Amino acid sequence: MQRKQVLRKLAFLGLIGLIGASAALTLTSLALPQVRAQDPLPSWNEGPSKQAIVSFVQKVTDKSNPAYVPPADRIATFDQDGTLWVEHPLYAQAMFALERVHELAAKRPEWRTEQPFKAVLANDREAIARFTEQDWAKIIGATHAGMTTEAFHDIAQEWLGRARDPRFKRPYTELAYQPMLEVMQYLRANGFKTYIVTGGGQEFVRVYSEQVYSVPPEQVVGSSIATKYEYQDGKPVLMRLPKVFFIDDKTGKPMGINLFIGKRPLAAFGNSGGDREMLEYTGAGPGARLMMLVLHDDAKREYAYGPAEGLPDTKVGTFSQALRDEAKKRGWVVISMKNDFKKIFAWE
Amino acid sequence: MQRKQVLRKLAFLGLIGLIGASAALTLTSLALPQVRAQDPLPSWNEGPSKQAIVSFVQKVTDKSNPAYVPPADRIATFDQDGTLWVEHPLYAQAMFALERVHELAAKRPEWRTEQPFKAVLANDREAIARFTEQDWAKIIGATHAGMTTEAFHDIAQEWLGRARDPRFKRPYTELAYQPMLEVMQYLRANGFKTYIVTGGGQEFVRVYSEQVYSVPPEQVVGSSIATKYEYQDGKPVLMRLPKVFFIDDKTGKPMGINLFIGKRPLAAFGNSGGDREMLEYTGAGPGARLMMLVLHDDAKREYAYGPAEGLPDTKVGTFSQALRDEAKKRGWVVISMKNDFKKIFAWE
Repeated sequence: MQRKQVLRKLAFLGLIGLIGASAALTLTSLALPQVRAQDPLPSWNEGPSKQAIVSFVQKVTDKSNPAYVPPADRIATFDQDGTLWVEHPLYAQAMFALERVHELAAKRPEWRTEQPFKAVLANDREAIARFTEQDWAKIIGATHAGMTTEAFHDIAQEWLGRARDPRFKRPYTELAYQPMLEVMQYLRANGFKTYIVTGGGQEFVRVYSEQVYSVPPEQVVGSSIATKYEYQDGKPVLMRLPKVFFIDDKTGKPMGINLFIGKRPLAAFGNSGGDREMLEYTGAGPGARLMMLVLHDDAKREYAYGPAEGLPDTKVGTFSQALRDEAKKRGWVVISMKNDFKKIFAWE
Repeated sequence: MQRKQVLRKLAFLGLIGLIGASAALTLTSLALPQVRAQDPLPSWNEGPSKQAIVSFVQKVTDKSNPAYVPPADRIATFDQDGTLWVEHPLYAQAMFALERVHELAAKRPEWRTEQPFKAVLANDREAIARFTEQDWAKIIGATHAGMTTEAFHDIAQEWLGRARDPRFKRPYTELAYQPMLEVMQYLRANGFKTYIVTGGGQEFVRVYSEQVYSVPPEQVVGSSIATKYEYQDGKPVLMRLPKVFFIDDKTGKPMGINLFIGKRPLAAFGNSGGDREMLEYTGAGPGARLMMLVLHDDAKREYAYGPAEGLPDTKVGTFSQALRDEAKKRGWVVISMKNDFKKIFAWE
């Protein structure tokens, strides 16, 4: 919720190459129907990333393997933004917050002169890109609080139904990465419980987690604001307060995992410095573990940022060179979207 | 964790009547083998409480009934102390905390003159009975913090293995109410997810929740202290801090349910003022709902306290007359342990 560098480059890149890739896929599926029918990860190219996933699952589910783990302890955790779906140039919940500022502005005339609202209302992208955690906290407080939990659910659901990503011109809920959905499904088919562990708002993600990821609300761990139990017309409700309760990012991720799940994950997937501690915590357990980082290196089909831009990126919350170095040192597998993803979106 | 009136009467009552009841049970099971084989609640006497449970489950699982609820939304929440197992005269976690004060005292000479530790070390039951929330917070901080989450798990598990309830002379983990275990199992067999929602310590209850209740750690919602992510010899750990993070009691129960589960329960079970808001919140949803309160009115087989003592009990955290009045008004079902429970413990 309060994450730095929320806004990255606003340049929208073209769709060149998608049509060709799509045609190639069709030929492959015609040529190898039997292999594809058995393949649990059809949207992955053969390579070390796909191999790491399959080999890990085989190990921990094979009773004769010393790395075998009983189903109750098969926990896999996934960061959301940038790991399961598009976060660039601005992740969906931030778009939701900014658009709500515009929608609510008529009743808040003071926002025309009050920062950070003034910058949002002026669509000042430069200023928005420089927002501090405090600025975002003010925006979240103004747009995500002051209603019941049920009213917030309805507001978010209504927005998700009509909002469209500026580049792909599709609902955000269609911007999940097909290969990652396949990993989640493959893990579940092998007795894993899949969790989303996101720095984003827990109640926001819960609105669509079942629909998009087949992950029920109770398996979404995220950042949250405080609530207050009170009575409205004699009916008990939970009011959302403009007060941060828990930030599920960086060191908050292992804390949130311990708090909500109470078990150490066997597998964890992320894409940025916000996921570093989750992967470290996962990897510190005994036996076979799988830690993976999604690298955004496909400027044609999606985006290229972080070390893929060829620039050292030392800011927290991004896939910095330091994170890439740690991945190498600890044996975390870096997923190249360009090379490992045969297909990025289901609708391609 | 910080609950008032933790210590109630310390008088341990006799086991008179148990042998006779046990003999009667054996005869019943011989006489009606077929009926018993089909009965999902064999430790319940026929009556309005058992009828309410069966009727509710039939309604919400029958697709032709307007009250039908799909499995994903079948959530049932259970308070623990006094609802699922014995809490009298002192609940197990409080015994654990007090015994740990004795065990740690050798290394803390200052405790001999410092309250509340001095009273604990002197076994001053009168003083312990008067402990404030602040006193208990100090004791929890001194006994439940300062170690990793894994070390705490081992400490609690070791204690649970050797501790014995003073009256029943059995491990606390054998003091679960058999009829309530049957309700949990019956609900799960009908597609419900069963959760423990306790004012007690989440990490303490998680140690034995699977073994005692067949509830996995991730379905235990409770009070918690803060943790800190740090490295010990290069290995990441979560250290438990002497700082309250969340109190899952009273208004905290619906807040905790929303936070951890994100769905309103269809059924909720409690036994005290700490459960009032959980039952109100459950009952405020549409369609068929089941709210039940366990009344401790069986001084012979277990204990009698709250309104069963014949005294108005206005203290928070107990089954007061006011709570009984609210139950009547809202149609909550009061379970009489004396009349509704054919058998109380599995080992009877």
